[in-house]
Amino acid sequence: MTMFRNEYGSKLLSDAVESLASLPGIGRRSALRLALHLLGEPVPNVEKFAASILDFRNKIQFCPRCNMISDDGRCAFCGNPDRSTGTVCVVENHADVLSIENTGQYFGVYHVLGGILSPIDGVGPDDLTISELIDRVAGGEVEEVILALNTSIEGETTAFYIARKLEGYGVKLTAIARGVGFGDDLEYTDTLTLGRSITNRQPFKI
Amino acid sequence: MTMFRNEYGSKLLSDAVESLASLPGIGRRSALRLALHLLGEPVPNVEKFAASILDFRNKIQFCPRCNMISDDGRCAFCGNPDRSTGTVCVVENHADVLSIENTGQYFGVYHVLGGILSPIDGVGPDDLTISELIDRVAGGEVEEVILALNTSIEGETTAFYIARKLEGYGVKLTAIARGVGFGDDLEYTDTLTLGRSITNRQPFKI
Repeated sequence: MTMFRNEYGSKLLSDAVESLASLPGIGRRSALRLALHLLGEPVPNVEKFAASILDFRNKIQFCPRCNMISDDGRCAFCGNPDRSTGTVCVVENHADVLSIENTGQYFGVYHVLGGILSPIDGVGPDDLTISELIDRVAGGEVEEVILALNTSIEGETTAFYIARKLEGYGVKLTAIARGVGFGDDLEYTDTLTLGRSITNRQPFKI
Repeated sequence: MTMFRNEYGSKLLSDAVESLASLPGIGRRSALRLALHLLGEPVPNVEKFAASILDFRNKIQFCPRCNMISDDGRCAFCGNPDRSTGTVCVVENHADVLSIENTGQYFGVYHVLGGILSPIDGVGPDDLTISELIDRVAGGEVEEVILALNTSIEGETTAFYIARKLEGYGVKLTAIARGVGFGDDLEYTDTLTLGRSITNRQPFKI
């Protein structure tokens, strides 16, 4: 008989719920549902579940060139001979790489900054892989650097900082296009985006 | 350099995403977000996360009396001397116990069936803890059995089955009240519920 009293009547359940509820976007109610779901799964499945998460966290590596996650050394993008290594897309984090990959429209390589300049959060240039990016460009193989950062103040600041640092290397510097999204209503698009989409208007193709 | 190619460019990430996406209500997009969140957490935190889930699944026990989860032997409810053991609330699963506990309105003990009669899913009486419930009642200590099952066809069937089996034991058999929920609009309440709430009307207390 346990003398442990909590709202779940079990410390084991309580700990599992607390762990699951620590994940972003998962509340305590959902966490309880997930824990009780795992209770109904065969033990080997739950062991596989835990192992895959631990393996991911413990064994994942970071590409020495672009800082993207990798299973062993150079990442799948830098290691792919079909990718154009002369074009480098600079992104804030790993998820951004996967988002761009999902478009199927990019065939160059990446550079993952690992964050964004933010004096408030104490993130300076040395906390990001900016010097590694400069070294890559200085190496001479890079022809174009595409800045694909968010349009937050921090994102713009980071983009300007990088642009300044790359001055003089003779590398082409571009930024992803801003404009009204497909399916978006002009009426509900913010003025900055709509304005940018007019300024950057493109020849109409028939 | 990895030659593994998938949409994540990493088997480790892919496996972690697949595990997380196997949880109910978590899609692949959310799973990716969760995995990358865990990548940003310190290793000890992720180890604690995995351990708490494994511990829960591997070490959890089931109360020999009521089948509720327990950390060690008898559950927190059966083991609590303040609970009235003469009143047994019969529920389908562990989550139902916690839902009823959350009301703060119940002071008896429970009996967790571990499921519900469902010929379609091949769940028969022997798959549930119905015989254990009958043994409890036959033991003589139980004065009232409260059926707190869902109003699905399977729930009603299970309730009737249990009611039949308990005939002749002289135990008081009740069911939780059905009616219009607090805050629910009469206009939008289904006729069965509204009808039941009229049939089971209660004296108005001033």
